[in-house]
Amino acid sequence: MSASRPPLNKTSPKMTSTVRLPERLLLGPGPANIDPRVMATMQAPVIGHLDPAFMEILAEIADLLRYAFGTVNEMTMAISGTGFSGMDAALANVVEPDDTVIVGVSGFFGGKAAEAVTRLGARPVVVDGGFGSPVTTDAIAQALAAEPDARAVFLVAAETSVGLRQPLAEIGDLVRSAGALYIVDTVTLLGGATVGTDSNNIDVAYAGSQKCVGAIPGTAPITFGPRAAEIIARRSTPVPVWYLDALAIHRYWTNTPFYHHTCSSTLMAGLLEALRIIKAETIEARAARHDRNGQALVAGLEAMGLQIASDPANRLSMLTPVRIPEGINDAEVRAELLQSYGIEIGGGLGDWAGTAWRIGLMGHGSSTENVARVLAALEEALTARGYECQPGSTVAAARQISSD
Amino acid sequence: MSASRPPLNKTSPKMTSTVRLPERLLLGPGPANIDPRVMATMQAPVIGHLDPAFMEILAEIADLLRYAFGTVNEMTMAISGTGFSGMDAALANVVEPDDTVIVGVSGFFGGKAAEAVTRLGARPVVVDGGFGSPVTTDAIAQALAAEPDARAVFLVAAETSVGLRQPLAEIGDLVRSAGALYIVDTVTLLGGATVGTDSNNIDVAYAGSQKCVGAIPGTAPITFGPRAAEIIARRSTPVPVWYLDALAIHRYWTNTPFYHHTCSSTLMAGLLEALRIIKAETIEARAARHDRNGQALVAGLEAMGLQIASDPANRLSMLTPVRIPEGINDAEVRAELLQSYGIEIGGGLGDWAGTAWRIGLMGHGSSTENVARVLAALEEALTARGYECQPGSTVAAARQISSD
Repeated sequence: MSASRPPLNKTSPKMTSTVRLPERLLLGPGPANIDPRVMATMQAPVIGHLDPAFMEILAEIADLLRYAFGTVNEMTMAISGTGFSGMDAALANVVEPDDTVIVGVSGFFGGKAAEAVTRLGARPVVVDGGFGSPVTTDAIAQALAAEPDARAVFLVAAETSVGLRQPLAEIGDLVRSAGALYIVDTVTLLGGATVGTDSNNIDVAYAGSQKCVGAIPGTAPITFGPRAAEIIARRSTPVPVWYLDALAIHRYWTNTPFYHHTCSSTLMAGLLEALRIIKAETIEARAARHDRNGQALVAGLEAMGLQIASDPANRLSMLTPVRIPEGINDAEVRAELLQSYGIEIGGGLGDWAGTAWRIGLMGHGSSTENVARVLAALEEALTARGYECQPGSTVAAARQISSD
Repeated sequence: MSASRPPLNKTSPKMTSTVRLPERLLLGPGPANIDPRVMATMQAPVIGHLDPAFMEILAEIADLLRYAFGTVNEMTMAISGTGFSGMDAALANVVEPDDTVIVGVSGFFGGKAAEAVTRLGARPVVVDGGFGSPVTTDAIAQALAAEPDARAVFLVAAETSVGLRQPLAEIGDLVRSAGALYIVDTVTLLGGATVGTDSNNIDVAYAGSQKCVGAIPGTAPITFGPRAAEIIARRSTPVPVWYLDALAIHRYWTNTPFYHHTCSSTLMAGLLEALRIIKAETIEARAARHDRNGQALVAGLEAMGLQIASDPANRLSMLTPVRIPEGINDAEVRAELLQSYGIEIGGGLGDWAGTAWRIGLMGHGSSTENVARVLAALEEALTARGYECQPGSTVAAARQISSD
C-alpha cells in the first residue's frame, strides 16, 4: 500500500445530501448570489491550515486584496469571520481603553461602530450626519479641533442601511493632518467600486466577502497601513480577544509554522476564486457595471412612482433604499417576493425599519437581468395590492439606462 | 417573465474553477477529512441569513448540538468562527474585568485560555497539571479554597497538544458546590465522545466544527447553561466585541427579524449535514469507533518501537502524540509524509514542539483504513532514515486491535 492511495472522497450512495435549501435570487443587502465558479471551487479537497499549498493561497489572496483595496499595505489579510468581525477587529486592534474615537454616523452601521468603541472601554465622539445624510468635512474638522487627542476617525464608506456613499478624500486629508488614524468601513464597496485606501489616506479598511467581493459570507478582508501597524505594535494593553488579534493573524498569514486558528481552505479557496474574477474583470469595469445597474434600478423604481430614499448627491449604486408606499404592508410584500418569485430584498434597518425596502445589486448579482426581474416582480406585487402604476413602464425605463 | 425564473447558477464554461488544491489525508490535530455528503451539501444554493428556510436550519442545528453536547440548554448555537472564537466567546461572555478565573493548564490550549482571561482584564489563577498531565481534583479544590470568589473554573476536556483526556465529573461537582461556573473546552471531544455537559455540571462548553463534528472549519458550537445565562444577563460591563456577544447571537438564532451578522447558509448547511450524520451513527457508536481506532494506532506505533507521549491513564483516542526518535528530523519526515504519501500529521505544539508528532483520527477520518495508511507510511519514512523496526509488524499489531 503506502504510496498508492485511493481517492479520499469516494462516490457512494452517501454522497446525496439530506439538507435542501431553496433557490433564491438574493437582491437584499447581502449575501448576494455568487459566480458558479466560486461555488465549484469550494468543492476542492479540504487541506490543513499549515499546508504549504495553503500558505501559497493566502499569499495570493493578500496580493489580490491589495489590488481590490487599492493599497500597498503589507498587513493585508482576511479574518475568519463575517464582515462584522472586520468592524470589531479594525477597532479592537487600534483602539485602547480610554481612547477617544470620532465616529461619523449616517445610519445603522455607524451607530454600531460607536457601540463597538464603547464596548472596548473607549469613548466615541459621535458626529451625526443624520440618518441618510453624509458626514461633512466641516463637522469632522470641528470634532478634530475639539478632540485634538483623538486616536482615530471612523467612517462608513457605504452605509447599506440608507444607500449612502460617504465622500472620503477630503476628510482623509484632514485626519492625516491631525495625526489621527482614519478607519473606514468598506463592507459594501470592496469589489464593486474603487476604494482608494492609499489615495484617500485610509489607515484601516475592512470589508465582507459576501457582497461585491463575490464569495460566501465568512471572511472579512482587512488592511492596516504602516501608521496603524505602528500604533498596534505600541499598544499598552493587549487586544481583548486573541481571535481578532491582527499581529497574530498577520504572523500566521506570512510565517508558515505559526498557529493562530484553523483557517478554512474551503472558505479561502472560494475567496481566492472570487478575487481572481475581480482582477480579470478589473475594478474599473466592475465599478461601471455596478453604477449602470444601480442607475437602471432607480429609473425603474421612479417610473413605478416610488420614492428613492437615498441622498441623490451621494447615492450608493449597490444598494437602493425605496420608501414603502402608504397602505402597503412591508412584511407581506417581502414574503410574497420570496415565496412566489424566489427574490429576497431587504427590509429597512434602524430608523427606517418598516418604512423602506433595500434592494441590492452586488457582485455577480449586479446584472441587467436581475434589475428587470426585481422590478417586474415588485410591480406585480404592488399592483395586486391596489398600488397604481403603468404596467411595463418600469422595466422599460430601466432598460433605457442599461442600453445607454 | 416574473414567476417563471431561470436557474440562477447556469452551467457554463465559467464553471471551471481556476484554484487547485491537493488531495490530502488529514491525520493531524484538525482539520480532518469530512464525509463527501457534507461537501455535497455545501453546494446548496446560498440563501439569506434572515430567510425563513434558514431559520429552520438554525433551529435544527441547535437541537442536534444539544444531542451532541448532552444538554438541554436553551442557549445552544454555533458561532461564525473557528474553534478559537469559541474559546474567546466562552470566556468573554461570562468573565468581566477584575474577575478571577481558575484555569487548569495541561498543555498549549489551557495556556491560551489563561492568556485569554488576561486579555479580558481579568485575573487567571493557573492550576498547572504539568504539560501532559491532567489537572487533579485536589488541586482545583485547593484553588477554590484559596479563591472563594472565583467567577469560574476553566478546563480543557481534550488537550490536543498532549493527547490528554481530562477527567471532568468530580471537578464538576466541586465547582458546582463552590458556586462558580464550570467552563470546558470540548473542541476535540464533540462528535467523537460523550461530552456530558449536563451530567458533568458544565455551565459553558464550546467546540470546533472541523474535528470530530465532521464539518469544515469555520463554525464553533457553543452552549451556555442557565447559571451562565444568568451571569451574562447581569453583567455590569458589555462583552468587549459585538461579534462574540452571546445574548445577541442567541437572539438572532431564535428570533427571526434580528440582525446580528451575515451568518453563512453554506457553512451552516454543512454543519447541519454533519450533525445529522452524528445523530444517525449515534454518539455512543462514534465514541466506540474513535476509541477502537485510537487504540489500534497506539498498538501499531508501539510495535514500531515508538514511544507514545500521552498519559496512558488519560489517553485521548482522537489524538495520539508520539515521541520523535533520536536522530530523526521532525520537519523532514512530516514534509515527506505530505509530499510523497499525501498524509498530513501534526507537529508538536508548545513544550513539545520539535520533539513529538501528533496523529489525529477524528470524525470521518477515524477509520481502520486510515490507521493502516499512516502506520505504513511512517514505517517506510522512518526505515528509509535508518530507524530500525520489523517490517510489517506495525500494521499487523494495529489490525489485531481492529479485529478484536
